[in-house]
Amino acid sequence: MFVHETQFRVRYVETDQMGYVYYGNYAQYFEVGRVEAIRSLGLTYREMEEELGVMMPVKSLNIKYLRPVFYDELITVKTMITAMPERNINFHAEVYNSKGELTTGATITLAFVDIKLKQTVNIPEEFKKRLEVYFGG
Amino acid sequence: MFVHETQFRVRYVETDQMGYVYYGNYAQYFEVGRVEAIRSLGLTYREMEEELGVMMPVKSLNIKYLRPVFYDELITVKTMITAMPERNINFHAEVYNSKGELTTGATITLAFVDIKLKQTVNIPEEFKKRLEVYFGG
Amino acid sequence: MFVHETQFRVRYVETDQMGYVYYGNYAQYFEVGRVEAIRSLGLTYREMEEELGVMMPVKSLNIKYLRPVFYDELITVKTMITAMPERNINFHAEVYNSKGELTTGATITLAFVDIKLKQTVNIPEEFKKRLEVYFGG
Amino acid sequence: MFVHETQFRVRYVETDQMGYVYYGNYAQYFEVGRVEAIRSLGLTYREMEEELGVMMPVKSLNIKYLRPVFYDELITVKTMITAMPERNINFHAEVYNSKGELTTGATITLAFVDIKLKQTVNIPEEFKKRLEVYFGG
Repeated sequence: MFVHETQFRVRYVETDQMGYVYYGNYAQYFEVGRVEAIRSLGLTYREMEEELGVMMPVKSLNIKYLRPVFYDELITVKTMITAMPERNINFHAEVYNSKGELTTGATITLAFVDIKLKQTVNIPEEFKKRLEVYFGG
Repeated sequence: MFVHETQFRVRYVETDQMGYVYYGNYAQYFEVGRVEAIRSLGLTYREMEEELGVMMPVKSLNIKYLRPVFYDELITVKTMITAMPERNINFHAEVYNSKGELTTGATITLAFVDIKLKQTVNIPEEFKKRLEVYFGG
Repeated sequence: MFVHETQFRVRYVETDQMGYVYYGNYAQYFEVGRVEAIRSLGLTYREMEEELGVMMPVKSLNIKYLRPVFYDELITVKTMITAMPERNINFHAEVYNSKGELTTGATITLAFVDIKLKQTVNIPEEFKKRLEVYFGG
Repeated sequence: MFVHETQFRVRYVETDQMGYVYYGNYAQYFEVGRVEAIRSLGLTYREMEEELGVMMPVKSLNIKYLRPVFYDELITVKTMITAMPERNINFHAEVYNSKGELTTGATITLAFVDIKLKQTVNIPEEFKKRLEVYFGG
């Protein structure tokens, strides 16, 4: 299992007139979480697009909202990969508020798509290699 | 069963560098869909907040992305309520592209919360009354 | 002088916890305004990118905020071109609330850029032709 | 003169299909810049709203776009206050890309508004005191 944590503050633009973070904005938080998770593996999502020619469109997104998150909170996004990806990759994400309480849980499934061919492909070898240490063999 | 459809165009801001609508922006489309669905019942979400003192935070969001949606497409958001809500309300939403193809399907569950008491309540009577014609009795 | 008006409703996501439309979101409204203004000329911005190979990055944006705009208001965006564009195009934009009061005024200057060459060019002939009727000759 | 710098990465959601940061999203960057600038003074914007009862709506925004900013760039937002604020506060903001090149310059003017009375007021004493050291006397 691969686990990564990243922290940042809620921006004003991300709140709505309820005074909470707008429900659609969590998708950005999960994105930041997985981008930083990939960077921690010594790869970047940007390189994946530019050098490996692979992009990762989202296939499904499931979110449970347990508690609201507020403006200026320093939140922690925990990003997990629990199984070696092949055709798709599943990220599990959790958002914790500044008190350490779980506020939001999500599962995001993405495909690997060859940018030129516009066809789904397997996880790039570069990426797989970096994950192998977390999934034994 | 209650069904409502609304149409609008994809904005430039909603795309990302993949050239698709960003996966988190569908949450806005579903919001527009349910707001217009409620308006078609002769009620508005704004009145619900301002006059009935009830807000509707989202409890869960499940999206399946089948096809990308592109800049400037005239999309149709179909919003459905399939059972009379009580403590929670479930909206089913579908986004169709300009060719009429289903691109995205979602289920969104919202609670009813008394704004002053910050407590969950049942569906406001005003809202229930307008839905009753769709669910017999 | 070319003038165009378009109407739409403020979305929940566009508000912030002040209860107003977030100051950065007006840029989207001006975008919708100019996209619809161009469409009313029988051209689309999408075609301009896809068929003419010209994109229009923004060079400057000046906004004055006179009054807040609120959730669910049916706003009118008035888009004006007051001089025939050459190297750049200036749009003047005004946002009116549902009472017809001016809430926001802006000037947006965009360049024409050849997408392949990544070089600034003059206004495409196709676009110029459609504007000529408004600027005499 | 008061100067503050903060750094963060461009998110995927902030790009558009041109492959650049969308022109309206810089408003968020300037917001993050000024919020962190205020925090560096030992105050927070959140406290200003919650404890001092003062909010800061934007009155005008002027942006010049010199160079595009790209996905995943580590950008630096430089925030400056060049004169002691009274009725209004002017922030000057500059965005630098990862090569240290100036990409965007802006001036943002905000008012101080008493949240309960909905009236403009002078800069809160708490805030003024912290700025005084930068503006001599």
